[in-house]
Amino acid sequence: MAKFYGIGIGPGDSELVTVKASRLLGDLDIVYTPEAKKRSKSLALSIAEPYLSEQLEIKQRHFPMIASLDEKKKQWEAIAAEIVEDVQAGKNVGFITLGDPMVYSTYSYLLDILKEDIETQTIPGITSFTSMASELGQPLTMDEESFAVVPATTDVEKMDAALRLHDTVVLMKVANHLDVVLPLLAKHQLLEQTFLVSHSSSEKQIIMKGVDKLAPDSKLSYFTTMIVKKNVL
Amino acid sequence: MAKFYGIGIGPGDSELVTVKASRLLGDLDIVYTPEAKKRSKSLALSIAEPYLSEQLEIKQRHFPMIASLDEKKKQWEAIAAEIVEDVQAGKNVGFITLGDPMVYSTYSYLLDILKEDIETQTIPGITSFTSMASELGQPLTMDEESFAVVPATTDVEKMDAALRLHDTVVLMKVANHLDVVLPLLAKHQLLEQTFLVSHSSSEKQIIMKGVDKLAPDSKLSYFTTMIVKKNVL
Repeated sequence: MAKFYGIGIGPGDSELVTVKASRLLGDLDIVYTPEAKKRSKSLALSIAEPYLSEQLEIKQRHFPMIASLDEKKKQWEAIAAEIVEDVQAGKNVGFITLGDPMVYSTYSYLLDILKEDIETQTIPGITSFTSMASELGQPLTMDEESFAVVPATTDVEKMDAALRLHDTVVLMKVANHLDVVLPLLAKHQLLEQTFLVSHSSSEKQIIMKGVDKLAPDSKLSYFTTMIVKKNVL
Repeated sequence: MAKFYGIGIGPGDSELVTVKASRLLGDLDIVYTPEAKKRSKSLALSIAEPYLSEQLEIKQRHFPMIASLDEKKKQWEAIAAEIVEDVQAGKNVGFITLGDPMVYSTYSYLLDILKEDIETQTIPGITSFTSMASELGQPLTMDEESFAVVPATTDVEKMDAALRLHDTVVLMKVANHLDVVLPLLAKHQLLEQTFLVSHSSSEKQIIMKGVDKLAPDSKLSYFTTMIVKKNVL
């Protein structure tokens, strides 16, 4: 029976796609991808490419990123209606997301609308932060430790509290927030125990061990994440 | 050149191994697996099995779980010395871990000893909690939200603070701590917004939506995790 698949394709390296995702990608008749960010669009498709069938139809749709929640929902509902139509016509339809579909992805909104009408399945993917930890050889968490994942777009008090509470804190989307993040790390005396990775697991990967030399006005890619560790191995 | 590979094999389903892990598993000459927990040993090997070569040598070694840190280190150093010898003799050696090697795995200790002497590479795996979120169709985190991963073996004040601070909290290893965890969730009025999964993505998988009916003396498997969500979709 035709189904809708939400497929996590991992952080960048096509080989970090799961065996299940690679199989399902090959079975898709249609794939929907966001075209909002030109870079992330081509990135997601290029990661999935080795597994896609030649007959695959690619439908690029506009998923607005900055509009109001109401505006966004209207757009998603239009795309969802199109997906329901495709699946009810017997097509296997996929939506591919960088990293994992359940971690900071617009997929969640789409799934919430679709699941009432058609059969859906979500396939987890490798997250950018676990991939980073492997590259760095630094555990995210061990034994009784805890860790948190916090977007640098949130308020500074929340980041501050997370840095007090947890042994490891992953700070996502730091690129445009270095003016807030760097002084906060300095206050906690954690600048030297912070790892920065840009474009995890891809050819463009940048790794920094310690951000004490990083200027607050540095130009970093949108795909930049910090791992702040109280206990560096 | 021969190498040591730390390979995450995901939460239980052999298809949730990455393409990279499946390829490297097939290239291994020797695999080391812990025999401390009889169940987890057979589980890890059975997940990896479809990808292993027929010539593979399996070395089961004792990784103590409850001994003192000094005792444990002594054991790891003995195993590390054996691994170094194997790699220096030209063998590709692997260590497989459930989920991800950088999230609550003894692998980190082993890596820390080994990396001085031989070439090492770590391959990330799907974590139990992202797999759970996909199964449940519930995002771990969206937009400005944050989430934390906290073991129920830590002190109750830390779990309490995490539940106050974050939108989603993953509580690991809850099986023997229900007497502490359930009253805490009741205090936060989150019992009905807590999802429980045991044996994620395997045939024995158990899913509960809401733990308000769960008795504090329930017998649960060691592989039981809760996802506590303030904003259920």
